[in-house]
Amino acid sequence: MNAPLAPDLPDEAAASRWEWESLNGSISEELRRHVAEIVAREAGRLTTLFYDTLLEDPEAAAMLSHELVSHRLNHSLRRWLKDLFPLEAAPDFAAAARLQRQVGEVHARIRVPLHLVTRGARVLKGGIARCLSQTSLPRDELVETLSYASHILDLAMEMMATAFIEGTERATRNEEAYRLFSLGQDASLEREAQRAALLEWLQSLLFAVAGRNEATRLHSIGRSEFGLWMQHRASVMFGGIPALQRITQLMREIDEEILPGIEQGCEIGPALQRLQAHANDIKFLIGDAFQAVVGLENGRDALTRTLNRRFMPSIFAREIAMATQSGRGFAALMIDFDHFKAINDTFGHSGGDVVLSRGAELIMDAVRLSDFVFRYGGEEFLVLLVEADANLAMRTAERIRATIDAAEFVVGEQRNLRVTTSIGVAVFEGHPDYTYLVERADKALYAAKKAGRNRVILG
Amino acid sequence: MNAPLAPDLPDEAAASRWEWESLNGSISEELRRHVAEIVAREAGRLTTLFYDTLLEDPEAAAMLSHELVSHRLNHSLRRWLKDLFPLEAAPDFAAAARLQRQVGEVHARIRVPLHLVTRGARVLKGGIARCLSQTSLPRDELVETLSYASHILDLAMEMMATAFIEGTERATRNEEAYRLFSLGQDASLEREAQRAALLEWLQSLLFAVAGRNEATRLHSIGRSEFGLWMQHRASVMFGGIPALQRITQLMREIDEEILPGIEQGCEIGPALQRLQAHANDIKFLIGDAFQAVVGLENGRDALTRTLNRRFMPSIFAREIAMATQSGRGFAALMIDFDHFKAINDTFGHSGGDVVLSRGAELIMDAVRLSDFVFRYGGEEFLVLLVEADANLAMRTAERIRATIDAAEFVVGEQRNLRVTTSIGVAVFEGHPDYTYLVERADKALYAAKKAGRNRVILG
Repeated sequence: MNAPLAPDLPDEAAASRWEWESLNGSISEELRRHVAEIVAREAGRLTTLFYDTLLEDPEAAAMLSHELVSHRLNHSLRRWLKDLFPLEAAPDFAAAARLQRQVGEVHARIRVPLHLVTRGARVLKGGIARCLSQTSLPRDELVETLSYASHILDLAMEMMATAFIEGTERATRNEEAYRLFSLGQDASLEREAQRAALLEWLQSLLFAVAGRNEATRLHSIGRSEFGLWMQHRASVMFGGIPALQRITQLMREIDEEILPGIEQGCEIGPALQRLQAHANDIKFLIGDAFQAVVGLENGRDALTRTLNRRFMPSIFAREIAMATQSGRGFAALMIDFDHFKAINDTFGHSGGDVVLSRGAELIMDAVRLSDFVFRYGGEEFLVLLVEADANLAMRTAERIRATIDAAEFVVGEQRNLRVTTSIGVAVFEGHPDYTYLVERADKALYAAKKAGRNRVILG
Repeated sequence: MNAPLAPDLPDEAAASRWEWESLNGSISEELRRHVAEIVAREAGRLTTLFYDTLLEDPEAAAMLSHELVSHRLNHSLRRWLKDLFPLEAAPDFAAAARLQRQVGEVHARIRVPLHLVTRGARVLKGGIARCLSQTSLPRDELVETLSYASHILDLAMEMMATAFIEGTERATRNEEAYRLFSLGQDASLEREAQRAALLEWLQSLLFAVAGRNEATRLHSIGRSEFGLWMQHRASVMFGGIPALQRITQLMREIDEEILPGIEQGCEIGPALQRLQAHANDIKFLIGDAFQAVVGLENGRDALTRTLNRRFMPSIFAREIAMATQSGRGFAALMIDFDHFKAINDTFGHSGGDVVLSRGAELIMDAVRLSDFVFRYGGEEFLVLLVEADANLAMRTAERIRATIDAAEFVVGEQRNLRVTTSIGVAVFEGHPDYTYLVERADKALYAAKKAGRNRVILG
């Protein structure tokens, strides 16, 4: 553990190095060499076993079957085994760690699912264990070699997995940035440009149909500028929206059913009608899709301007880390508007909306710039008070309750509607999982409701 | 493999279930029970071993030492072991899988590094192996039980890791969204609000100093609205910018050195001078930090409006997946402006900038809406042509080369500067790692340079 680490290895490698070195130090050189000889002798057969087993799995087969991959992998798998179990001397930690990191990074880049990699490792591990148990080693030495080989493979997999996860996090971060970047582009401009591209395709198609002869090949919508944009660009923007699948299906029907029919010259009239209907549907669905993403993808709740609860895990994790380090706590307030259903029933949803948006404003005014206000559910808000103890949290909660209790809401004709809130307070007690804190605040809120509403309870 | 999966288990569980069931089916009931009895008997000692080993590692100790965690974990670790090796009958796959998923999700939420979890698993595995080898089992049966126990633990760890990675990806996506959301807030408004908060703190401090008596406690900058905002909000926005560390340090010096000095009444004059200098530095650094993030965080290169190369991995991965599925390829063009250094030397950097921004415009005009143009390096651009074969790629590259060759650039006084480009072309050949494709395009570009520049070469 005292030896300096290679500069390109992360800190956690210190513990791995220690484990690696004590593992390699604890086995006799004779037994270590025995394992290495068996692995070297069987490397070819182990590689074949690896392939034969993984190719039975369709998901793995799809990844491994590419010729370039199998050629390179076959070679590098043998080398990988021989490097982990070298004949000459105990394997060098820094070299082994570097190799595992490289492999893990490639796996992350080409998105090999981790379970395929660990499955492959189990195949190799099982194969090596079988070879070892078929030798004439006595019981104790067999146990020792088995545990040594399995431990080496486990350590290698751990280093690979660590690099894999880092690479995956980096890739995920870039993907999310790209998705949000695509959304942040000027959506209305983009919508018009794409509508125009669709119309252009339709127009050139109609000209081709009007002047067609037998040799005319109609341009597919899938390969048009519009179609390419839909597949290669819009899928990021609209990812997960049902309209996207529907558009893809309509385009496929145009290309695979309608256009071939027109080319063959049969029933042109109905085919053109169907084409027009499909094109209109696509135009409509695109408008819809643009509308949907604009509404969905704000960091703030559109009605109340409070934070999207999607950010809760990140923000709580940061505050937990800071609180654990600094020893200064923080608190969560769970705020619920009392009898909200009655407000909705009496004044309609727009009345309820007024109460929520004005209420959220009052909450945000009652806390500091550095605190966080989330829309937690329908009429529930969650406030994270940074650097707060029970005292400050209770005072803030009471201020929020009193402010809302005293405020007059203007809902339609009624200019002085009064509403109240119940608030549950919970102070961070050190548990690293933020959901415990939120649960405690929620229970305290429930207690405040049960005790008659319009009150604050510390959980 | 035919049994229906529990609805909350992902597809890849089919292969795990098959492995799980054949593993549990291959060992005799007597031996399986033997392992289960040993684990049940030793569960307490294994848990102690787990703790004693992990607490030696400072990183693990920091996570495990919280009382709530150790209390819960101690209990759940014993249960976890007994559930994996139940006395009654072979463990049920669906139940085991669900449990591992839950554990993996919690680990992701509280950010336990994977290597700590795998290290813990190795401790347990080694402990169980030692217990088994201390029994009187004959050689063959010992090998069988050792491999069984290790295989069960490996499968459990795989399921846990899969859920862990999914949870980590989700968390990473939310974190990135939050970071970009924080950046997207109106930065100039935020800057003025924070400048005002800083001035407010300074003013109230000066009033307190002017009218102070011995009991006066001065308000720390760290706990002021400004200080809290810096720590809890700005750190997300400015994450990784050196100015942030410097501001934190200046604030710490104010709180830990300057203010205590003033409170003790010694050398007020110099202390106030130092305070003013610190406050000015902070104001200056914040202005700088805001400036830096505005420039850095665009999806597009500020000069050329081409895409940030940060998006390359995401976009290539998507195109590779689509191409592999559809069988339709795509291509990469690596474009470099010839003799760019000479342009910079003759016309200065602003001259070079004109060439790059006008050149990028010409490139973007020469490709389709669905293609991607990245700023790859100083004077290098990378174009991804979707759904393109060698033919289309070469025609497009040639069009770009000819357009730029024919264009007259207006650089300062000179209204008709001519520049040329060299272009390397590579067509996707099926390798899942996009860096191979980029490398081939790069080599082709190098060949085009060597062959005399102002030409296109297919790699």
